[in-house]
Amino acid sequence: MDEVKVSCPATIANMVCGFDILGFALEEPKDYILLKKTSKRGISIKHIDGYGLPETPEQNVAGVSLLELMDHIYDGIGFEMVIDKRIKPGSGLGSSAASAAGAVVAANHLLGNVFSNNDLVKFAMAGEKLASGVKHADNISPAIFGGITLIRSIYPLDIVSLDGPPFYVTVIHPQIELKTSDARQILRKEVKLKDAIRQWGNIGGLIAGLMKYDYDLIGRSMEDVIIEPMRSILIPRFDELKKSCIEVGALGGGIAGSGPSVFMLSKDEEVAEKVRRVMKEIYSPLGFDFHIYMTKVNYKGVEIVD
Amino acid sequence: MDEVKVSCPATIANMVCGFDILGFALEEPKDYILLKKTSKRGISIKHIDGYGLPETPEQNVAGVSLLELMDHIYDGIGFEMVIDKRIKPGSGLGSSAASAAGAVVAANHLLGNVFSNNDLVKFAMAGEKLASGVKHADNISPAIFGGITLIRSIYPLDIVSLDGPPFYVTVIHPQIELKTSDARQILRKEVKLKDAIRQWGNIGGLIAGLMKYDYDLIGRSMEDVIIEPMRSILIPRFDELKKSCIEVGALGGGIAGSGPSVFMLSKDEEVAEKVRRVMKEIYSPLGFDFHIYMTKVNYKGVEIVD
Repeated sequence: MDEVKVSCPATIANMVCGFDILGFALEEPKDYILLKKTSKRGISIKHIDGYGLPETPEQNVAGVSLLELMDHIYDGIGFEMVIDKRIKPGSGLGSSAASAAGAVVAANHLLGNVFSNNDLVKFAMAGEKLASGVKHADNISPAIFGGITLIRSIYPLDIVSLDGPPFYVTVIHPQIELKTSDARQILRKEVKLKDAIRQWGNIGGLIAGLMKYDYDLIGRSMEDVIIEPMRSILIPRFDELKKSCIEVGALGGGIAGSGPSVFMLSKDEEVAEKVRRVMKEIYSPLGFDFHIYMTKVNYKGVEIVD
Repeated sequence: MDEVKVSCPATIANMVCGFDILGFALEEPKDYILLKKTSKRGISIKHIDGYGLPETPEQNVAGVSLLELMDHIYDGIGFEMVIDKRIKPGSGLGSSAASAAGAVVAANHLLGNVFSNNDLVKFAMAGEKLASGVKHADNISPAIFGGITLIRSIYPLDIVSLDGPPFYVTVIHPQIELKTSDARQILRKEVKLKDAIRQWGNIGGLIAGLMKYDYDLIGRSMEDVIIEPMRSILIPRFDELKKSCIEVGALGGGIAGSGPSVFMLSKDEEVAEKVRRVMKEIYSPLGFDFHIYMTKVNYKGVEIVD
């Protein structure tokens, strides 16, 4: 078998209070990658999505991730990759991670699964470095492992899969591009110890809440006193959006990754639908396009579809 | 029934990476408090332990906690309290929290349990404020609830009981006094964001490890890049002690609260005994007294014994 098609899920990093350490995968949206192993060395990339992304391997997140993987195998083979990207770049929904994760999972499949998931995360982080300037794994890990993941540590890499109760996830993606590298620049390099303590209380609460299936605790813990106050100023009507969604019953939520998408978790489908309506009402008058996803947590990660 | 005797457990705050948010109770050592309800207003306190602690209610941690509780009940009663303190003040083992927690749990018992555990934590925090200048609950909460507790938030108070696998706890208490208020002063008010991220990864790992009964993850996560590097300089031969204990099989450990006691967690009794021997070997030549406790996590908290 020399060809495989994979679906690559969108992911939401941070999960409000867990900057750089938490992330989860979504059922929708997802990219598709068709990967073919060839006897011709090197990589060729073709995008069939119209986003105008670079097709030179060294400038393409899936390309550099695959090059990183190829450094660890025998010489003399190559890959042809066709990427159908449906997660818009710059959405905050892990668009680059989806490509990077998809490429390495697909290649590993064609190579007889010689690499562990941890290896694959390391390879795909090369893609994240290209996209954002920083090797972070909070989108890559859930894209590869599925579900909700904790990055306890990057060096050495230590990924923990977390349990959690069922959620409905409502995501609004305003069609304005925000680059992760820009969103990182507005962060301060130092934080107050008292804010850090509040943050780690919330992280503890969120993880305990997930493991205990305690929806209320999960909701109370999705509070970010460090990153959100700085990043939310880049997102139109963020405070009103968040407050209104929680008023109609959402457990909580916040900025997806570095934004501009905003997600909300709900216990029931009915509430998730109310959240969708609230998001639409608030964003409709603003005069730019947006898309709302009604989805769930994806526990499979990148999947072989063909 | 107008009289009750309670045992009040020692507690270990922080659990290495969870500064101000995590704590757990120990089987040993423990204080004892005999509390009598009287028809004479006010509080009288007698210490029978020889530590020379103040017996004026307003200057005694058990006294101020009880006064705080009495602000919330009808007038016209009083209490006589006899405290047999066996947890040495300034040990880092929650000596003040034991007295504060014991006093309010005993009083609540005599009043027909009109207050919730959360109420009692709030009252007892008045004692912690007197002892350390700060209202913190990371010793009080496990002393009252038992087991391992997370303080998600102080304002509003949000305490989460955490599950965890069985542990053996070895604690060395060098007989040098270190005041919590001094140990707090050496802390910086700002921390690097990258250190905070590493810390919250570890907190997440520790809590996930506890809930999953994953000893290795618990061990890996007991790393503190913020507080320990500053506070450990006050503790003789700390780095050598920690390294040697882990070499003989301890899962991990660190400073108990603000020190000077140091604790280590082990999975097996045999390892805990090796840890005890290592601690003794390292501290014996240093020329000051120390005491080593071999104990376990106490899941009951303050207990009625009579």
